[in-house]
Amino acid sequence: MEKCFDDLDIPERVLMGPGPSNVSPRVLRALSAPCIGHLDPYFTRIMDETQDLLRFVFQTQNRFTIPVSGTGSAGMETCFANLLQPGDRVVVGVNGVFGTRMVANARRLGGEVIPVEASWGEPISPKGVEESLRRNSIKIVAIVHAETSTGVLQPLEEIENLAHKAGALFLVDTVTSLGGIDVRVDDWGLDAVYSGTQKCLSCPPGLAPLTFNSRAMEVLENRKHPVPSWYLDMGMVRKYWGAERVYHHTAPVNMIYGLRESLRIIYEEGLEARFQRHIRNHLALVAGLEALGLPMHVREGLRLPSLNTVRIPSGVDDVRVRRALLQEFQIEIGGGLGDLKGKIWRIGLMGHSSTPGNVILFLGALGTLLKAEGTVTDPGAGVSAATERFASWESD
Amino acid sequence: MEKCFDDLDIPERVLMGPGPSNVSPRVLRALSAPCIGHLDPYFTRIMDETQDLLRFVFQTQNRFTIPVSGTGSAGMETCFANLLQPGDRVVVGVNGVFGTRMVANARRLGGEVIPVEASWGEPISPKGVEESLRRNSIKIVAIVHAETSTGVLQPLEEIENLAHKAGALFLVDTVTSLGGIDVRVDDWGLDAVYSGTQKCLSCPPGLAPLTFNSRAMEVLENRKHPVPSWYLDMGMVRKYWGAERVYHHTAPVNMIYGLRESLRIIYEEGLEARFQRHIRNHLALVAGLEALGLPMHVREGLRLPSLNTVRIPSGVDDVRVRRALLQEFQIEIGGGLGDLKGKIWRIGLMGHSSTPGNVILFLGALGTLLKAEGTVTDPGAGVSAATERFASWESD
Repeated sequence: MEKCFDDLDIPERVLMGPGPSNVSPRVLRALSAPCIGHLDPYFTRIMDETQDLLRFVFQTQNRFTIPVSGTGSAGMETCFANLLQPGDRVVVGVNGVFGTRMVANARRLGGEVIPVEASWGEPISPKGVEESLRRNSIKIVAIVHAETSTGVLQPLEEIENLAHKAGALFLVDTVTSLGGIDVRVDDWGLDAVYSGTQKCLSCPPGLAPLTFNSRAMEVLENRKHPVPSWYLDMGMVRKYWGAERVYHHTAPVNMIYGLRESLRIIYEEGLEARFQRHIRNHLALVAGLEALGLPMHVREGLRLPSLNTVRIPSGVDDVRVRRALLQEFQIEIGGGLGDLKGKIWRIGLMGHSSTPGNVILFLGALGTLLKAEGTVTDPGAGVSAATERFASWESD
Repeated sequence: MEKCFDDLDIPERVLMGPGPSNVSPRVLRALSAPCIGHLDPYFTRIMDETQDLLRFVFQTQNRFTIPVSGTGSAGMETCFANLLQPGDRVVVGVNGVFGTRMVANARRLGGEVIPVEASWGEPISPKGVEESLRRNSIKIVAIVHAETSTGVLQPLEEIENLAHKAGALFLVDTVTSLGGIDVRVDDWGLDAVYSGTQKCLSCPPGLAPLTFNSRAMEVLENRKHPVPSWYLDMGMVRKYWGAERVYHHTAPVNMIYGLRESLRIIYEEGLEARFQRHIRNHLALVAGLEALGLPMHVREGLRLPSLNTVRIPSGVDDVRVRRALLQEFQIEIGGGLGDLKGKIWRIGLMGHSSTPGNVILFLGALGTLLKAEGTVTDPGAGVSAATERFASWESD
């Protein structure tokens, strides 16, 4: 091999896709701190603080609250691999890619899955869940709080009630909500919850925040079969994150530095202020998109502030517009997945990326490109509407 | 919660334990480059280059050569989860913690494990493997090339011959050898090989380099049962790392920046020069340890240049010495695991940590502490012996 490998020269993107979101320079700086040992007394202090901060964003007192050493999908697998045993029945809400992924996860682990479906853009109805719970001994009810593939925010309260009345664990995916949208693990009675770092937490991808309450821990402790995954066995991992510090696998030290810093930023901003910021920027974006003639894919009241899905006007070339956004304006947004491919765009306003500046920049760039596509006459209409929306918020 | 979370203030450690090793400032700088999308055209180029560089260090042409999104232990699990099906027979060499871990991994996945044991400090004997291969239809022979818990370098040639004569796949753990000790995947006929980033590659922990040859890929493709782990299903992951770029999970973007840079440093140094450097520093360290009256745990010819195990003299307090090394000299070394706890120290000279300066610093510090422990009269004896060994190397 006689190749030339250049210095990294990463383009400065504005990350407004379905994740990763832009990462604060503070977090990047933390990532680049010297690596030290995974059992170093200074590092174990960092671990404890990271757990404290994770409890803060999860709004929980759960002792077992850690970052799993893998991406958000590893968080999903950790929940099923630890809480499910072969033959167990699981009710899974399926209204997008991530509910579908839950079904695949649970089935591969020997679970008997009862899917409760909704169309991609609608929430899962509690009635459907209730129906499926009539079958006996459901072990887990699993649902996605924020469907990244559709932009739907799932109401949890009724389903939580049903799950617990049926004696099942309530397992929730908060990958695209944690740190951007209210997630009250304790108040809402969520038993097992996972997330990812690269969405509203605005840390690079690579870790999966996870929390189990005492009911989930009991299920784990009373397993008959060992957890099929050695790497994701939380019965062993807890002894490393707990006071025992028993070595299991080498923790991803620098990623944990980065996560801690991203959580510290959230702690400084405060949860309520952060959620309000996400809502404000989301509403301005929606006003701008509608002014450009683009209807939202999800009806009002069910929209994720962190991930906005909008229908692509007929006659507009999905790929051409996204490529131009990236090449001319350095803006990344996401296309649709599955049946929604070519039909919607997914515009993220997550964490560090959720700023008025990004809303304005994106709407201006999109207006320009849609004028070139011939579907818009006034390319500044989006910017004007968003600006007005921001102003009305100030006077609220 | 009303806590104060300080700025990170990482102590500057000299990492001479069983990993992580010290990370070059170049790698830390790469880690802190801006995060971009996992499907960004610039990032997919970085992915391709990372694969090229991994093929270089693995000395392979294997197309499927990637970093798995987890630590070295996830690499181990990836091999077993993808290549093993319930009921398959696996022969595993067990002469330390990581062979023991292989047994646990394979058993949890439903494998019928036939362990071939050796004492902790000896290599696995080909005769033992031959014996176990007399049973029919062994699917995999799995062995640890560099046992981090004992410091033994496992000769592979004979066992490779036996495995292939028996029609089995040959699976090798190179966590503590890759990038510091010769690993010739193609020349040696290794079918499935994994490693970790935090040892001789000197990148922070978090990724598991992995390579499968065509025989391993064929086994994966002809599975009857789906891979039990969705996250580690290489049949899906390969479509993201290959030309299709099908989204599976969000790649750990910044960690891959770091890995690429650590591999680029190896590419610049050259494999042969790097291996020689590891051997030179290892021999000087051994000379110094012996001059201080500490016998090596592993006999000559079977010692890992990257991980040196030495017997703790009787009367010396294991924990007190290691604590003083860390607190007074900022040097981390490892203690023994399992039956070797309190009996040996594990001194890493891996990648960026393998320098003459570290050898001298460590021997000087250890001499001082052993004088205080009362087992050494001349605290400089180790430094003198190492210096002489370096000089004799120069004149070779």
